[in-house]
Amino acid sequence: MHRTHTCGELTLANLGKPVVLSGWVQKSRDLGGMTFIDVRDRYGVTQLVFDAADDESLRSKARTLGREYVIKVTGTVIERENKNPKLPTGDIEIKVSSLEILNPAKLPPFTIEDETDGGDDLRMKYRYLDLRRNPVRNNLILRHKLAQETRRYLDAQHFLEVETPVLIKSTPEGARDFVVPSRMNPGEFYALPQSPQTFKQLLMVSGFDRYFQIVKCFRDEDLRADRQPEFTQIDCEMAFVEQEDVLNLFEGLIKHLFKTVKGIDLGDIPRMPYDQAMRLYGSDKPDIRFGMPFVELNTAVKGAGFPVFDDAELVVGINAEGCASYTRKQLDALTDFVRRPQIGATGLVYARCNEDGSLKSSVDKFYSPEQLQLWAEAFDAKPGDLLLVMAGKADKVRKQLCELRLEVASQLGLRNRQQFAPLWVIDFPLLEWDEESGRYHAMHHPFTSPKPEDIPLLDTQPGAVRANAYDLVINGTEIGGGSIRIHDRDLQSLLFKHLGFTQEEAQKQFGFLLEAFTYGAPPHGGIAFGFDRLVAMFGGLDSIRDVIAFPKNNAGRDVMIDSPSPISAAQLSELGIGIR
Amino acid sequence: MHRTHTCGELTLANLGKPVVLSGWVQKSRDLGGMTFIDVRDRYGVTQLVFDAADDESLRSKARTLGREYVIKVTGTVIERENKNPKLPTGDIEIKVSSLEILNPAKLPPFTIEDETDGGDDLRMKYRYLDLRRNPVRNNLILRHKLAQETRRYLDAQHFLEVETPVLIKSTPEGARDFVVPSRMNPGEFYALPQSPQTFKQLLMVSGFDRYFQIVKCFRDEDLRADRQPEFTQIDCEMAFVEQEDVLNLFEGLIKHLFKTVKGIDLGDIPRMPYDQAMRLYGSDKPDIRFGMPFVELNTAVKGAGFPVFDDAELVVGINAEGCASYTRKQLDALTDFVRRPQIGATGLVYARCNEDGSLKSSVDKFYSPEQLQLWAEAFDAKPGDLLLVMAGKADKVRKQLCELRLEVASQLGLRNRQQFAPLWVIDFPLLEWDEESGRYHAMHHPFTSPKPEDIPLLDTQPGAVRANAYDLVINGTEIGGGSIRIHDRDLQSLLFKHLGFTQEEAQKQFGFLLEAFTYGAPPHGGIAFGFDRLVAMFGGLDSIRDVIAFPKNNAGRDVMIDSPSPISAAQLSELGIGIR
Repeated sequence: MHRTHTCGELTLANLGKPVVLSGWVQKSRDLGGMTFIDVRDRYGVTQLVFDAADDESLRSKARTLGREYVIKVTGTVIERENKNPKLPTGDIEIKVSSLEILNPAKLPPFTIEDETDGGDDLRMKYRYLDLRRNPVRNNLILRHKLAQETRRYLDAQHFLEVETPVLIKSTPEGARDFVVPSRMNPGEFYALPQSPQTFKQLLMVSGFDRYFQIVKCFRDEDLRADRQPEFTQIDCEMAFVEQEDVLNLFEGLIKHLFKTVKGIDLGDIPRMPYDQAMRLYGSDKPDIRFGMPFVELNTAVKGAGFPVFDDAELVVGINAEGCASYTRKQLDALTDFVRRPQIGATGLVYARCNEDGSLKSSVDKFYSPEQLQLWAEAFDAKPGDLLLVMAGKADKVRKQLCELRLEVASQLGLRNRQQFAPLWVIDFPLLEWDEESGRYHAMHHPFTSPKPEDIPLLDTQPGAVRANAYDLVINGTEIGGGSIRIHDRDLQSLLFKHLGFTQEEAQKQFGFLLEAFTYGAPPHGGIAFGFDRLVAMFGGLDSIRDVIAFPKNNAGRDVMIDSPSPISAAQLSELGIGIR
Repeated sequence: MHRTHTCGELTLANLGKPVVLSGWVQKSRDLGGMTFIDVRDRYGVTQLVFDAADDESLRSKARTLGREYVIKVTGTVIERENKNPKLPTGDIEIKVSSLEILNPAKLPPFTIEDETDGGDDLRMKYRYLDLRRNPVRNNLILRHKLAQETRRYLDAQHFLEVETPVLIKSTPEGARDFVVPSRMNPGEFYALPQSPQTFKQLLMVSGFDRYFQIVKCFRDEDLRADRQPEFTQIDCEMAFVEQEDVLNLFEGLIKHLFKTVKGIDLGDIPRMPYDQAMRLYGSDKPDIRFGMPFVELNTAVKGAGFPVFDDAELVVGINAEGCASYTRKQLDALTDFVRRPQIGATGLVYARCNEDGSLKSSVDKFYSPEQLQLWAEAFDAKPGDLLLVMAGKADKVRKQLCELRLEVASQLGLRNRQQFAPLWVIDFPLLEWDEESGRYHAMHHPFTSPKPEDIPLLDTQPGAVRANAYDLVINGTEIGGGSIRIHDRDLQSLLFKHLGFTQEEAQKQFGFLLEAFTYGAPPHGGIAFGFDRLVAMFGGLDSIRDVIAFPKNNAGRDVMIDSPSPISAAQLSELGIGIR
């Protein structure tokens, strides 16, 4: 038997008990004639003591143990002299009577400690060692808990978990597919799913009523900061629902997860139309842990002869409350921030609110104190506030001000990772114009239902058509999104037409779905959550890599197993393909 | 709102209640001035009544509804005159006050009934309609339940569900891999996992201690009767365990599933060494719902001048108890059965046990009544029994007799689908000789640990080395298999050598695992269950297709979505590959 207990469970209640423990040597120290070793497993750390006075050869053997050796010891639980109140096992130690080395270990290339000395590349190559570190393992334990609680909630709500296929069909819409050559059907390819979208809709046509799946999805995209070629979704769909039903049910899921996993009562999740989110925060995923909404100033600032404002489509600003004391250097840094190429603004106007209520701005030569009072009123400014104002094309300046707002909030410590501010963003546009291709694209996907009252606008003003689509945003990060789907064949065909599909293309790609709609498709809708991102959010982590056991790097490589890799000529030939 | 209740929940307790129901028209019938419609959803069927005396136009509208139309009705729960005790809702009906057609439906290509008139091909093409049928949907509900209960049990046993990657590395060992060309790494390929074997072992090296995953796996094999290119495993691994620990823990899982999902107390699962299974049943997955073990007759039958027996390596038979009354025709049919090309025996010898205890055999001219008494003793035959005896090369004749045993048991009704006889088969050989390649192959996989006491045999008698490997067999079907793994680098290298890998090949393919073993790998072992097969077993079904929502056909095609399919020249070029 390898153990009677784990390394995390023995306490004073077990005093005198003979035990067997197995685990890894965390550290070792000699003190007089004694050697103390911390042995570690997933569950904790327990101190072992080898006393030369009892057994000199055993103590000598203990001194040969290196870090990360795998050992098994037999011994007795005794009370510790120097108790460690930080450890659950800190009141006891094991007086060891026998020691077996189950496997020796080379010195690891980095330390297996909460704060390691290993760089990113090294830790990726030896991911199995990085996974030994508590913070990394705890992220995956968090992931496990979230997955189990998600299933528990949805199961109780009568959702059925149905596995949809991984080997499906390539579609030209959306991101690039990963493809899989078919040996049995030479010249043909499967594609890996970007999402199980059409299959879950077919399950609704089948009357499954409520479907979910925690499922791997795949996108062959160039990997920016926080993307992975394979990622995981909580994918859900319901029949006979309207938007309100979906929002309520999944608000329940999010509350359940926060309650059971983090012990947080989340409260009701506010809702905000897309238009309002763009106007107030310049983003369809606003961070509402703090206020600082946009204030539009066109009426207050135009016509004073300041050409930057006079010529701008939109003059808009934020009130950085209490920041009037910002130094010139700090203000210059903010200006530099908005001028960074990735933001691309030309400048930043500021106005400080003095103690007497007057304003001191960077554009005083254009504005009289009375005119500046209009600013103060627009911002509802108090003494001590700092007003930051930008101008330009409306869409562009909103994006720029959005970045500035987040930056200022970060500087003010308003973006606490342990505070969670969820938000439903609703009423998304159905279509968005794509300059590159010169046509409209589906903002969510081609199966999203327009609001019935907006359907007439499809022909006259396609960009104004709103969708029954919604996103769940937490702390400025999109955690999930979904929509009520089209369930009418003719409406779906119309949408394909507006998205630039010929009838033949639509038939070839989605003929099975269009046909399914003619056999009695119920109204239905759903949502998908980015599970990696949800876990990262719960863990207060920046990167989804931190919550994936074996992630790939930015070149799509798994450097641990050295994949992808060449395959043999025989394999290629059997698949009927060649390398160009 | 689309519904206040489902179609399966209203009873007399809801009398007089105003309700809204949505669902599919199951059937419709007119009776006098009334129209009765059964409306169906996942949860059940409810009868609607439209009375011309109340509202003639509403009743007329109801008469236009075709099968599978999707409707929404508002009405009141009333007591039924002709109650249907078979239905949970059979005591009530809905007096409808308004009717909305949510979606009309074309006539389905086959009937949506428990017994449908649709052939296999048609039902595969319209799988979304086939999934509407109760038996098909119930199989997937069963699958859902088994998945949830599996997770519940393993979670309670401190297993962590960890997702391993789908885009991994191709390995030449085992079945053919599906591969995925990498656009970002031209000329290189990912492979889809045949199992997460090496990743779960690395998780043990990482100290995860207990891992599981319900996970899709992939094999590009020619699809025989009951194989699918993508299938699902319950994949598990544990550290610091011996075989006994693994068997006990997963025996607990199987008992939990039978108890919670089928209400069956399974009892302890017997264990049988591989050698014994082969000797007694001619199979490493014996069906032990019934006895009928093999009886070896060499000593009883040899030397009597019957050349078929005298020349045979093994003479072996079964006692078909109570079958002495089999007619000549029935016995000829059994002989024809064993002579079928896929079994390939040359003949079958039989002996009936008469009422007086004497035997009447098909080889009476070679055997005296006294000699035949030796047979009777060997079989422990009683009057009325039928002895069936075959002869030939030991391995071959055992396989043949295995088929005969199953056939006779089927004829006798001994293979009841609602009876479950699980069995652990243990002590598998580590290696098996492969005639084609002229070398030994791993019987389970190259990571399986030999029994320590058999390691010396590796050089002298490789075929005699037993592994710490085990299979779970239920009713003659292999449901799961696993082993204690090698955790020592040198032993693993030795095994690779015995399996014909050069040191360079082993390093290239599994270098990361060999290296991981040098950094403190704990003893570990695990098991994987074929989840599709487990569900099929629970459902009493022959084919795993019946428990997969969207299966592929024998050519690896999904005929519903028409996949695989050609991809564009642009896609091929971007991937740097061409079609030969």
